[in-house]
Amino acid sequence: MKLRIFVTLKPGVLDPQGKAIHKALGGLGFEGVNDVRAGKLIEMDVADATDDAAIDDMCKKLLANTVIENFRVERV
Amino acid sequence: MKLRIFVTLKPGVLDPQGKAIHKALGGLGFEGVNDVRAGKLIEMDVADATDDAAIDDMCKKLLANTVIENFRVERV
Repeated sequence: MKLRIFVTLKPGVLDPQGKAIHKALGGLGFEGVNDVRAGKLIEMDVADATDDAAIDDMCKKLLANTVIENFRVERV
Repeated sequence: MKLRIFVTLKPGVLDPQGKAIHKALGGLGFEGVNDVRAGKLIEMDVADATDDAAIDDMCKKLLANTVIENFRVERV
């Protein structure tokens, strides 16, 4: 079973990587960019028997820092 | 207009970050993980007038290294 896990910073958490991208886009002459937030995408191939609780556990224990990040799991 | 840009390593390109996550999941006792690939997710808010060509250009010039990475743009 293929999974896509999206890890994004919670709203309000400062995002220096996003800010750097935003500034660099401006420097390259791209207009009209209002905001940029950077996150992570983790693609996983897991055994079909893996249940939702285990996937949730993986995210909470390793993949996302739930103090400052949200995560969303999508089955492909 | 909100965009989500997914940047992933091309198949065959070595992914040390993915390998590290895979190993760490094993170390935490999670069974049945076959493969892990790490990528980037960039969420952007751009002016509605921004056309596809400009977005494509942003990805090719800054957001993705097209030698080793693929990108996909999704409008939210």
